[in-house]
Amino acid sequence: MEERKNDAVEYILKIGNKIRFDVFRGERRGFPEVVYFEGKSVEECAEIIKKVVDTGEKIIISRIGEDDYIAVKSKVRGIESRYSREGRIASFYSKPYGYVLHGVVAVVSAGTSDVPYCEEAAFVCEEMGCKVLRIYDVGVAAIHRPVDAAAEIKKKNADVAIISAGMDGVLPTIMASMLDIPVIGLPTPVGYGVAKNGIVALQTMLSSCVPGVAVVNVGNGVGAGALACLIVKRINDRVASAK
Amino acid sequence: MEERKNDAVEYILKIGNKIRFDVFRGERRGFPEVVYFEGKSVEECAEIIKKVVDTGEKIIISRIGEDDYIAVKSKVRGIESRYSREGRIASFYSKPYGYVLHGVVAVVSAGTSDVPYCEEAAFVCEEMGCKVLRIYDVGVAAIHRPVDAAAEIKKKNADVAIISAGMDGVLPTIMASMLDIPVIGLPTPVGYGVAKNGIVALQTMLSSCVPGVAVVNVGNGVGAGALACLIVKRINDRVASAK
Amino acid sequence: MEERKNDAVEYILKIGNKIRFDVFRGERRGFPEVVYFEGKSVEECAEIIKKVVDTGEKIIISRIGEDDYIAVKSKVRGIESRYSREGRIASFYSKPYGYVLHGVVAVVSAGTSDVPYCEEAAFVCEEMGCKVLRIYDVGVAAIHRPVDAAAEIKKKNADVAIISAGMDGVLPTIMASMLDIPVIGLPTPVGYGVAKNGIVALQTMLSSCVPGVAVVNVGNGVGAGALACLIVKRINDRVASAK
Amino acid sequence: MEERKNDAVEYILKIGNKIRFDVFRGERRGFPEVVYFEGKSVEECAEIIKKVVDTGEKIIISRIGEDDYIAVKSKVRGIESRYSREGRIASFYSKPYGYVLHGVVAVVSAGTSDVPYCEEAAFVCEEMGCKVLRIYDVGVAAIHRPVDAAAEIKKKNADVAIISAGMDGVLPTIMASMLDIPVIGLPTPVGYGVAKNGIVALQTMLSSCVPGVAVVNVGNGVGAGALACLIVKRINDRVASAK
Amino acid sequence: MEERKNDAVEYILKIGNKIRFDVFRGERRGFPEVVYFEGKSVEECAEIIKKVVDTGEKIIISRIGEDDYIAVKSKVRGIESRYSREGRIASFYSKPYGYVLHGVVAVVSAGTSDVPYCEEAAFVCEEMGCKVLRIYDVGVAAIHRPVDAAAEIKKKNADVAIISAGMDGVLPTIMASMLDIPVIGLPTPVGYGVAKNGIVALQTMLSSCVPGVAVVNVGNGVGAGALACLIVKRINDRVASAK
Amino acid sequence: MEERKNDAVEYILKIGNKIRFDVFRGERRGFPEVVYFEGKSVEECAEIIKKVVDTGEKIIISRIGEDDYIAVKSKVRGIESRYSREGRIASFYSKPYGYVLHGVVAVVSAGTSDVPYCEEAAFVCEEMGCKVLRIYDVGVAAIHRPVDAAAEIKKKNADVAIISAGMDGVLPTIMASMLDIPVIGLPTPVGYGVAKNGIVALQTMLSSCVPGVAVVNVGNGVGAGALACLIVKRINDRVASAK
Amino acid sequence: MEERKNDAVEYILKIGNKIRFDVFRGERRGFPEVVYFEGKSVEECAEIIKKVVDTGEKIIISRIGEDDYIAVKSKVRGIESRYSREGRIASFYSKPYGYVLHGVVAVVSAGTSDVPYCEEAAFVCEEMGCKVLRIYDVGVAAIHRPVDAAAEIKKKNADVAIISAGMDGVLPTIMASMLDIPVIGLPTPVGYGVAKNGIVALQTMLSSCVPGVAVVNVGNGVGAGALACLIVKRINDRVASAK
Amino acid sequence: MEERKNDAVEYILKIGNKIRFDVFRGERRGFPEVVYFEGKSVEECAEIIKKVVDTGEKIIISRIGEDDYIAVKSKVRGIESRYSREGRIASFYSKPYGYVLHGVVAVVSAGTSDVPYCEEAAFVCEEMGCKVLRIYDVGVAAIHRPVDAAAEIKKKNADVAIISAGMDGVLPTIMASMLDIPVIGLPTPVGYGVAKNGIVALQTMLSSCVPGVAVVNVGNGVGAGALACLIVKRINDRVASAK
Repeated sequence: MEERKNDAVEYILKIGNKIRFDVFRGERRGFPEVVYFEGKSVEECAEIIKKVVDTGEKIIISRIGEDDYIAVKSKVRGIESRYSREGRIASFYSKPYGYVLHGVVAVVSAGTSDVPYCEEAAFVCEEMGCKVLRIYDVGVAAIHRPVDAAAEIKKKNADVAIISAGMDGVLPTIMASMLDIPVIGLPTPVGYGVAKNGIVALQTMLSSCVPGVAVVNVGNGVGAGALACLIVKRINDRVASAK
Repeated sequence: MEERKNDAVEYILKIGNKIRFDVFRGERRGFPEVVYFEGKSVEECAEIIKKVVDTGEKIIISRIGEDDYIAVKSKVRGIESRYSREGRIASFYSKPYGYVLHGVVAVVSAGTSDVPYCEEAAFVCEEMGCKVLRIYDVGVAAIHRPVDAAAEIKKKNADVAIISAGMDGVLPTIMASMLDIPVIGLPTPVGYGVAKNGIVALQTMLSSCVPGVAVVNVGNGVGAGALACLIVKRINDRVASAK
Repeated sequence: MEERKNDAVEYILKIGNKIRFDVFRGERRGFPEVVYFEGKSVEECAEIIKKVVDTGEKIIISRIGEDDYIAVKSKVRGIESRYSREGRIASFYSKPYGYVLHGVVAVVSAGTSDVPYCEEAAFVCEEMGCKVLRIYDVGVAAIHRPVDAAAEIKKKNADVAIISAGMDGVLPTIMASMLDIPVIGLPTPVGYGVAKNGIVALQTMLSSCVPGVAVVNVGNGVGAGALACLIVKRINDRVASAK
Repeated sequence: MEERKNDAVEYILKIGNKIRFDVFRGERRGFPEVVYFEGKSVEECAEIIKKVVDTGEKIIISRIGEDDYIAVKSKVRGIESRYSREGRIASFYSKPYGYVLHGVVAVVSAGTSDVPYCEEAAFVCEEMGCKVLRIYDVGVAAIHRPVDAAAEIKKKNADVAIISAGMDGVLPTIMASMLDIPVIGLPTPVGYGVAKNGIVALQTMLSSCVPGVAVVNVGNGVGAGALACLIVKRINDRVASAK
Repeated sequence: MEERKNDAVEYILKIGNKIRFDVFRGERRGFPEVVYFEGKSVEECAEIIKKVVDTGEKIIISRIGEDDYIAVKSKVRGIESRYSREGRIASFYSKPYGYVLHGVVAVVSAGTSDVPYCEEAAFVCEEMGCKVLRIYDVGVAAIHRPVDAAAEIKKKNADVAIISAGMDGVLPTIMASMLDIPVIGLPTPVGYGVAKNGIVALQTMLSSCVPGVAVVNVGNGVGAGALACLIVKRINDRVASAK
Repeated sequence: MEERKNDAVEYILKIGNKIRFDVFRGERRGFPEVVYFEGKSVEECAEIIKKVVDTGEKIIISRIGEDDYIAVKSKVRGIESRYSREGRIASFYSKPYGYVLHGVVAVVSAGTSDVPYCEEAAFVCEEMGCKVLRIYDVGVAAIHRPVDAAAEIKKKNADVAIISAGMDGVLPTIMASMLDIPVIGLPTPVGYGVAKNGIVALQTMLSSCVPGVAVVNVGNGVGAGALACLIVKRINDRVASAK
Repeated sequence: MEERKNDAVEYILKIGNKIRFDVFRGERRGFPEVVYFEGKSVEECAEIIKKVVDTGEKIIISRIGEDDYIAVKSKVRGIESRYSREGRIASFYSKPYGYVLHGVVAVVSAGTSDVPYCEEAAFVCEEMGCKVLRIYDVGVAAIHRPVDAAAEIKKKNADVAIISAGMDGVLPTIMASMLDIPVIGLPTPVGYGVAKNGIVALQTMLSSCVPGVAVVNVGNGVGAGALACLIVKRINDRVASAK
Repeated sequence: MEERKNDAVEYILKIGNKIRFDVFRGERRGFPEVVYFEGKSVEECAEIIKKVVDTGEKIIISRIGEDDYIAVKSKVRGIESRYSREGRIASFYSKPYGYVLHGVVAVVSAGTSDVPYCEEAAFVCEEMGCKVLRIYDVGVAAIHRPVDAAAEIKKKNADVAIISAGMDGVLPTIMASMLDIPVIGLPTPVGYGVAKNGIVALQTMLSSCVPGVAVVNVGNGVGAGALACLIVKRINDRVASAK
């Protein structure tokens, strides 16, 4: 990241009257600022992208539907981008970007309805350089499915596992009971009745009788991905200094 | 039950000014009225027992501590009784009593702290004539424990399983995924943080991704036992009429 | 079910990247996997149906509107199906199917708005072979209505009763007080003010002063039906072994 | 009430620095200020009683245990009083007091544990001059009990019925379905699990499918009694003006 | 009501498979069954009206929008009707109907947004024969407004007051402090933030420091009206028997 | 405050391993750090006092019972202190201290049970130099009481009013409707049923239909006092610069 | 404001049957009645404006979308107005209006999605005559952003700061820790998962470990602005009397 | 761990009728089963310790007060142990034990009341071989405290940071904004009013605007420690395989 414009005056990038972008977040935290699309216009979004990419940073925009992505993209011609329709998340950058984490993140879903949240997390991990191992629809109603999934995660030597579930939120507990790597529970707002909005899934994960399950907010795929990346980053840093 | 005093005037048994006992509940519902001790004095309780046992009914008193049980017992000399210290539940009766259900009820706990609620349920089932298969401390953190428990339940050919859990409430889901008999989830108020009071365990059970789990109120061992007995009773009735 | 394709390699049916179907669920649990339509496309759904029906299993799809049902059906020509518009639930199968439970399930509603949830439950029971006795709009505001309903249930010798209610959720308690068979409370999200979303109805059922009422999640007609079927199945199994 | 000290300067009675008693409440509202004991000392309480009784008003003190009542009483010698141990409520007055409502209030409980709240309500009604018809332990688990209670209420020609219940809170709905007088639902904090603290009973009453049930706060016997008295008062006023 | 068709066989009116109408509710409770439109079709609704009006009963349909009212009306030609667009409530009847309560009900709103719920309550009272005194937009932010309203209620000699409020729900407390008639608090789902859905208004009314405020469910104008009518009915009955 | 020890190394005062005191808080915020006693031992507390007073700061300790206060005081001989038994709050200082705010804070309670929270707030204001005008027990059930209180507040020309209430939390709204100074709503955990713990009072204040009521956490007398002081401080600063 | 029409008969302005406007609110409270548009028609709104402006008062209409504003404006030709599209708030007046507060209010947002609530608050302050200092998008994820914002607020010598935040609601705490003026926390309904609807932001602000943060309801920009104005007004009053 | 008794029959250690210990948890998950003391007797606890230590495993007992620890210890003479009074947690083992993780875990508290939960987490980490860096009382009310803490964590090159907070739960967000290692938010049940029980702190952490904060249940020091250990373990495993 040597060519970053490091002028102290610009350490926060003011964009119009309403936006201040934290360009050095990636450097400081090991994970860049992610822009939440909701509440912004296509024009504001395009302006942020242009200014941020101009500093040399990659920028990730989350919760952006396909139509909005296309509209934004048409306003920032000449800037590279990648988009996940299922994850509703995009990245914009001007050249092969510098985050090259070395690690494997397993991303597991209990049902097919949880997949969008998994894809949001997977996208974030991939943008940071991680390999992602996707294993979907392994709900505990058929206990051999999570058993198989755990075996595959071990075989692929994943460093961390993001396990999503809605409804009863049971899957992270079951998976964690069979794994010796950090497990991140990602509750999803999939369900009805008491399970509506994912709060039951969240609480089940927080109450897990298997100690050591990390939990993030309901539907927070970006947060789950960020946490996985920070763990991989620490592994990379320690491996580097051990050599 | 032929010798029941069937005077229409007495079909509700008035005991003092505050208590009306439903003596024909057992006949009508297949499960007798259970007296909740809380909010009653030892004297009132003894008076109820004497009057009810005098009608030929067995009476069950729940949520009664050992000291209160002993105090009550000393006031109803000549009446038989049985008490479960762990279940905090007692029965009083004057002769070999008429409920003779034929069936096996498995009673399973996730942890040792859930055992009192299991014992309350088990006591109720035993008083109704059922055999009880107790399997305790089979929490999912070690997935081979519930697998073993399911195998034992099948081997003993249980008719229904009561599965209790606090904290994350995951166990009934896991057990139900391996069984083809009715499963009753009994949430317990064991836990802390978000899991305090058993509401999370209850909600997890209600949201179970395995369809067909019956749920009762938090800590409601009597209700779980009653439901198991009603299922066994129906089996018995159908077997009798099939012969 | 002798002709089931029993290859161990295929015990979980992978369908695309996002779906793993548990084909042996029916054999293992006595109740097959039910596919929740929400979060799936018509194409995915059709593919699941084709693959599952090909294994000899019947498949049930819940929460599917009429338009989606018609779209799915047009993609799986040659496969038999049945649909309930009120219950928003469908089944697909290739020949007279093997679940032949022998039993009668009463399905009762407090109001007319609860009927869709009842029909979902009834559909499930009928698909498993049960006879269904429908009794609708018997809310307790006119106490003679539930009294009549209880009399009819006894007359028809039902094995289990599913009682649905929204708003105050009082009906299962009243019905259970007059019946000696297992009663399943099915709360529905019908109501307004504090009763919005069915949580009050659910809690009233869980707090029932009549012990032994089984409760399922709000609006969970499939779960109520599955529980009824598991009870009938156990009766059938015991009757068979008693002969 | 002609001899009330009607000095405008004293229309609020200041007692020490912390208490301002509304002596004309009875005249203005038809129901006098009730002093909630909690948060006050025996000394403060005795001082209030002396000053209020000196104005000619009767004073009611609620939520006062027997020991505190005795302590207070010993400090206000020469003042008449009445106390209900079960209702934990007392009245103090210096002469046959002027509230003479003419009416009958039925006070009904679902269980024996609800009786203290009923007695609080009954005490208030009796102090205002009403006749009270107590009918306790008529829970709906035996449907003939509330049917009997309704018959008795009609026979005694009660003007209003206070119906208390904890747990599922079902009783007011059932009673109201059989009565053509105003019914006041009094939820009590009797229960466990989801029903702990009486919130479920409260919500069931608010959601009653029988329109026209008046509801008061959990455990608010004074409020239920006050409402009953205001209804009786209005009847009395209209009967008086009709003559 | 002498010409009511009193055939015991028809004491519940079955209409199609899904509806059982309680025709004798008015006679039994003093207040007829009110049909909640939601969850019913225009056709079902018209069929109910025709059958009920044919028995001589008046029928009230609540929560029915203007378009649906017009559609229903066009299917029941020859039957009289009245409709309140603001209250979204209608009545259908074939001749001058027999409920002639003699009394005055004050209906008061805190803000203009609460008016629809007031109009629902007012409609119900008027259909039962009561006179209604409407006083709207008297929120406590200008304390002289409720003071004026109380003066007007006394001047018109109202028998009971329905006081609606959303947001903070303060108005019934303030009004009750100045009145000596029964006050019914009608919380409305008007508000935002913590006050969204009317739960805060409801709880404020339940917690009122003025004892004796009757509370109904959020937005339950029918219930508030029904309660007011039952109070007026009791007054009428007592006045009649006092003569 | 010129003699403050201004060594940058000590800008946070480390006391043992568990405590870091922010000695410059008073200078930075205009309001010093207040130590919450709960979770600390008498010894730790005495050590904090000695070290802080040694820097020249006054220190306030909240939520400290009388026994603990006496124990602490005996360990810090030579240091001045003031204690409020009702407010359960103490201050320690070594000389006439420098906070001399010029302003009048009205502190008003709805009931006598709210007084401890008022006294906590009043203590804080007095320690900062403000004059406090106490007006207690002016609940809205007698509307002339808050009217009188508002008149007194205007007469004494108070700069800000802290209005506490439990139960329905109505008082701040009523008072604010009659005042043109900032009003701070202080909800208290006084109440029962739905009003238990003060959450209803809090929510009523937040939902106030009188715009501009400032709200603090339930029972947060220190916070209410701090806010009042910051308002008075700003007034003082502006008056000083205006001269 | 000398030319106000001060006829006692008109001290509440009745507009149609549903609206009573409190014209003297501005005089009494120092802040005029704000009309909430929701629940009113364009016609009613225009009528209110005409009548109020005719009394000489300025009138503010909140939560009014641009289309409705234009429709209202076209019906009140000849009356001046100002509108904020982002704040969805308008003012109407007939001449340079008399509220001329002298003070500076800082309005700060954590993110860009919080800006509409800030603009509502800012509009209110500006209409009362205050200067507004807007500082947007200073979320704590980059801690130097709030540090900069605090520095700017001090430099501009603001009298009070309104700090808005959704999600975690952390910003007011951080800002208050660096300021010695009153801070008003304005939670916004921006967020998802547990943070949906702004309740978490609200609770974080209420629980702030920095004493003295004033909190208003979620999304209550008008309330935040009104509180700021009342503080400025008091400053102005004291400065005026000090001269 | 070569001398572990690896008999398949004993892979679950049955201890009495109520306890099944998962002796291979450490091997399978990298973190051994932790026994929650609550709900067990001293005798049961001692028996578990003896049997587990006999297999060669270390055993950790959480939530055990000092008196119980001493009682247990006296029953297992000859077995080594370590106890943390503040953390209320103990370990028992028979020889220098085999978990030797290489890593540094920072454990940070917002206040002194959060220290017990920190000590529970720290104990767990130390028992697994980690070095622990304790930094206590760095609440955000003085923003330079967390800034200093972040600097110290970087200087000591910690691998992961556990950040505890009650009340507003703000600290993990602030710390995470300055660190590039995984941060675990540990909410504590320290607070009052809305913040009672730690739910607000939990929700603030889940809603953190800094992506990547891992959250555990309220008061779950064991879980926070376990998660930290699993991260360190993965680092160790990768470093080992990289060499």
